[in-house]
Amino acid sequence: MLPPYGLRLARSFALAFLLVPTLAATTPGVDDVVMVIHGGAGTIRKSEMTPEREKAYLEALAEALRTGHRILAAGGSSLDAVEATVRYMEDSPLFNAGRGAVFTSAGTNEFDACVMDGRTHQAGAVAAVRRIKNPVSAARLVMTDTKHALLVGESAEQFAAAHGIEMADSAYFYTKERWRALERAREKERQDGQSDRAGKFGTVGAVALDANGDIASATSTGGLTNKRWGRVGDTPIIGAGTYADNATCGVSCTGVGELFMRGVFAYRVSALMELGRHSLGEAVRRVVHGDLVALGGGGSGGLIALDKDGVIEMEFNTEGMYRGYIRADGQPHAFLYRSP
Amino acid sequence: MLPPYGLRLARSFALAFLLVPTLAATTPGVDDVVMVIHGGAGTIRKSEMTPEREKAYLEALAEALRTGHRILAAGGSSLDAVEATVRYMEDSPLFNAGRGAVFTSAGTNEFDACVMDGRTHQAGAVAAVRRIKNPVSAARLVMTDTKHALLVGESAEQFAAAHGIEMADSAYFYTKERWRALERAREKERQDGQSDRAGKFGTVGAVALDANGDIASATSTGGLTNKRWGRVGDTPIIGAGTYADNATCGVSCTGVGELFMRGVFAYRVSALMELGRHSLGEAVRRVVHGDLVALGGGGSGGLIALDKDGVIEMEFNTEGMYRGYIRADGQPHAFLYRSP
Repeated sequence: MLPPYGLRLARSFALAFLLVPTLAATTPGVDDVVMVIHGGAGTIRKSEMTPEREKAYLEALAEALRTGHRILAAGGSSLDAVEATVRYMEDSPLFNAGRGAVFTSAGTNEFDACVMDGRTHQAGAVAAVRRIKNPVSAARLVMTDTKHALLVGESAEQFAAAHGIEMADSAYFYTKERWRALERAREKERQDGQSDRAGKFGTVGAVALDANGDIASATSTGGLTNKRWGRVGDTPIIGAGTYADNATCGVSCTGVGELFMRGVFAYRVSALMELGRHSLGEAVRRVVHGDLVALGGGGSGGLIALDKDGVIEMEFNTEGMYRGYIRADGQPHAFLYRSP
Repeated sequence: MLPPYGLRLARSFALAFLLVPTLAATTPGVDDVVMVIHGGAGTIRKSEMTPEREKAYLEALAEALRTGHRILAAGGSSLDAVEATVRYMEDSPLFNAGRGAVFTSAGTNEFDACVMDGRTHQAGAVAAVRRIKNPVSAARLVMTDTKHALLVGESAEQFAAAHGIEMADSAYFYTKERWRALERAREKERQDGQSDRAGKFGTVGAVALDANGDIASATSTGGLTNKRWGRVGDTPIIGAGTYADNATCGVSCTGVGELFMRGVFAYRVSALMELGRHSLGEAVRRVVHGDLVALGGGGSGGLIALDKDGVIEMEFNTEGMYRGYIRADGQPHAFLYRSP
């Protein structure tokens, strides 16, 4: 038995209003693309910046954002966008990844990188590699061209070289500033008898949502100044420093890597959404200001994240984080400090 | 104003009944200790076993269980128990960890191991090490004696050697059976032009609950036969192959490592309990027969787990899993196949 016409009409209107935003959310397009990036967190203070240096960072972040946006705006994949953006930051001497990486205690550079595809849950990573110009591209090759998820050391370099990945020598990665940082750390170690834990956590990362609604994440790092013993941090660990799942979100972390590993924090953001019914913002704040602080005190890092609806988060418990985002309008927004 | 005496008495009784089981659950002792272990999952069929071989595996599993139990029964820590038990399995040529490990494509052995303390959420791991007699002990040293969580390659060996960890040469790790497995894999590769993915996933692991109510997990592996390129699997990855949290459970996995890494399955079991309100059994079955199958088809692995109440789970989607458990009575229970 049909209800009265008026009621049916009202119900149709109500259904239409319910369906319009639902349809819009399930059929994304180039108007919905978005990317969020970071270039490391830590003691980034306005008082310690020169106007030139500030400008250089803001411009590098903006150009990194435009690099990925060009791909997304043309209908390209989030995987291509995050890889290109992280490559741009690896090539910049300003960030601790690729060129401009910090030095280990042995005076070498050692890189870790990871990429994850939120559609397929495929992931690839490399760790403790020394001669790969763009570690993020080697990570992607591990994902696409092997059955493996993580390759380490010289063997990983041999794999990458055999597959046409560009190599670079130590002169390419060298920057005067990073070498001086190693000398300062060595000096401090001689004086204090213990190693210095730098207050700045150099990592770069990008998370993007493309016109198909696919999320991808990528992270790359040069590790810690004066690090030894083949230490690997959270960056190349799926679930620790990098994670992506179309059903929830994409995440890229920066900070004291060991805390992100022990807390499995990139995946925890996703699990809080999937299993804990948190919004992205609730999940991110709980991890950065709750779980991360509980494990390791304040000032230990931050993360960027982006959910399937294009909501972005850039959260940290340090004094600053190099970060930014770009939406479909192509206008980059870049930030350095806690307060604007 | 006091309620009538009868009501107060009834309320006291009710409170007492509520408190008794609560107190019992929060003050564990040596009567509550329990340990669960695995020695790898895969195509373990009764039809392919000799009675002698079957007996050797059952006896090795029983002795591994007794090794950890002696520590737990004396009031020792779950960390000491899982380390000693995994060392026993590393020393046995029957399991793919330490002595008896499989060979890489280069004819070498490469080990990964991880240990995690559910009370402190501290963890330590080593990966791609070749000369360490008991990788699980090196992993524990990373946890206790460094600020790091994961050390890889030769540098990790140097760290371990400098801290008094026992080294071993390739002759120690060699077993005729594993070398033949490499030769078979190489032959298959020559014939098929592609690498063989072995049907047996050699890993050893232990999870224990001690008299203080502390949970610890440890996992150790010799990797995949004929593996190359410095591949690292889930074993040394916190959250992938190994996880422990006093508030939920301890987990140790075995199987196609890449699937456990991509699904962050050890941590997912814990997250399903914490955030998804699953029991341990529900969480374990959902991961092994749901999530793991969704990522990689059937026959891809299994895991052991133990919760804070001493509930144990030994679940796998393969034909068999070397496994067992022991409770306060000190009676080991060991199993090989799906059906008894």
